[in-house]
Amino acid sequence: MTAVFTIPTRVYYEDTDASGVVYYANYLRFMERARSDWLRDVGLDVCAIAENQGALFVVRTAAIDYLKPARLSDLLTVSVAIKRLGRASLEVEQEIRKDHALLCRGTIKLVSVDTQTFLPRPIPDEVRIGIDTWKLP
Amino acid sequence: MTAVFTIPTRVYYEDTDASGVVYYANYLRFMERARSDWLRDVGLDVCAIAENQGALFVVRTAAIDYLKPARLSDLLTVSVAIKRLGRASLEVEQEIRKDHALLCRGTIKLVSVDTQTFLPRPIPDEVRIGIDTWKLP
Amino acid sequence: MTAVFTIPTRVYYEDTDASGVVYYANYLRFMERARSDWLRDVGLDVCAIAENQGALFVVRTAAIDYLKPARLSDLLTVSVAIKRLGRASLEVEQEIRKDHALLCRGTIKLVSVDTQTFLPRPIPDEVRIGIDTWKLP
Amino acid sequence: MTAVFTIPTRVYYEDTDASGVVYYANYLRFMERARSDWLRDVGLDVCAIAENQGALFVVRTAAIDYLKPARLSDLLTVSVAIKRLGRASLEVEQEIRKDHALLCRGTIKLVSVDTQTFLPRPIPDEVRIGIDTWKLP
Repeated sequence: MTAVFTIPTRVYYEDTDASGVVYYANYLRFMERARSDWLRDVGLDVCAIAENQGALFVVRTAAIDYLKPARLSDLLTVSVAIKRLGRASLEVEQEIRKDHALLCRGTIKLVSVDTQTFLPRPIPDEVRIGIDTWKLP
Repeated sequence: MTAVFTIPTRVYYEDTDASGVVYYANYLRFMERARSDWLRDVGLDVCAIAENQGALFVVRTAAIDYLKPARLSDLLTVSVAIKRLGRASLEVEQEIRKDHALLCRGTIKLVSVDTQTFLPRPIPDEVRIGIDTWKLP
Repeated sequence: MTAVFTIPTRVYYEDTDASGVVYYANYLRFMERARSDWLRDVGLDVCAIAENQGALFVVRTAAIDYLKPARLSDLLTVSVAIKRLGRASLEVEQEIRKDHALLCRGTIKLVSVDTQTFLPRPIPDEVRIGIDTWKLP
Repeated sequence: MTAVFTIPTRVYYEDTDASGVVYYANYLRFMERARSDWLRDVGLDVCAIAENQGALFVVRTAAIDYLKPARLSDLLTVSVAIKRLGRASLEVEQEIRKDHALLCRGTIKLVSVDTQTFLPRPIPDEVRIGIDTWKLP
């Protein structure tokens, strides 16, 4: 079974818009917070990966389903689960829930790129091993 | 042939992140600017639609391809083209280009909802007619 | 002595810009998170105040000192301390620190307004009493 | 008399929050757009200054007065006027107006820093001369 990493995230005024709910682009910010915290849990800080390995995960495709709106002051749970780990890419499934209601779900494909050129490069060994090890706790 | 509406958008520091390029969620902000300006061009201000018709377009699904990064100071062109206009939904294709290079492309499905309940409701006639008329200039 | 409320906040890619540090407007987002969480600690959710009391705190003036930049992955501490509680206004001092280093400091004056008209109105009694009580724990 | 540079800026959903008006931190984004476009008008792109001169203007202090709220779909005018040009610093006055109503006003003090160390350094000659020349059109 796939291991799932989750973080709590509160909705503040900054996240909402004049329609009264969370602005649609901001769910992607919540998802990135969960991915960054998950990498940190794996032992891999995004900042350290960039500085020490010269590598960066960038989003190549994002497919987002918006099911129900999140609102001001909601306490959300944002999850990350690995779908596929490739040589230079990583695909994750992410969900945003309030209590048990699923509000938003995304499939995000990331690719490993060089921090200078933004050209694809294999995921650094340390990063790949960390992610692989984390998959089977 | 499909009519295509475009707007120019400049990349400022606010749009970028520490990796040196535009933050992935911010392309969705650029796309929304183009959709809002297109509706205004149709004769339909998003604010007026909400206040006068009690209706709102919310994003139901977004499928985004990130092809090349946009960078600080880039002058981008963001397009909107109608793919399908339904009774309560609207699907658009959007592209973000720098000069002629395609940087990012999205298929966005919007649904018409009630501003109070966020439940689906038919697109107000005035809005649908405006969009339909705009399609054939 | 003044009671001080603090929250931790992590810096993510969304908060930074192409210069490599946190974008200057985003420190104001961090400060608002601390103010909202502080009100929640007082027993007053911003969302509930708006819905039940028809009142809202809006920022009237903000004076911000940017001393040192915060960077990607930094874990910050954001504080709120009441400076002055008036009939329709509230002044707070806020600090953003990394470990013990002071990165950013702000004096924020908020006024209580009606959620419909945005005209000034006295702070609702329940809110004022909550804040006053919290001041002397 | 001081020369004043202005840009138009439209308010989109992304700029507003659940209170129905523009989120307070976002006025600082509007101000930065005007400063960047003004520098471009001077002949100095922020991106080119960073890459060619290794220099960057960072905000040292910001004093903001929020007078009236801006709302969804408002077309705003954002101005920049030089208050003081120092050896390593620049102070500007900025205003945000809707039609002739003043909504928000800020005094922003920027300092010139090295892009690598973020330590203060004199404003590059090319930049200072450009700004000085622009002052007397």
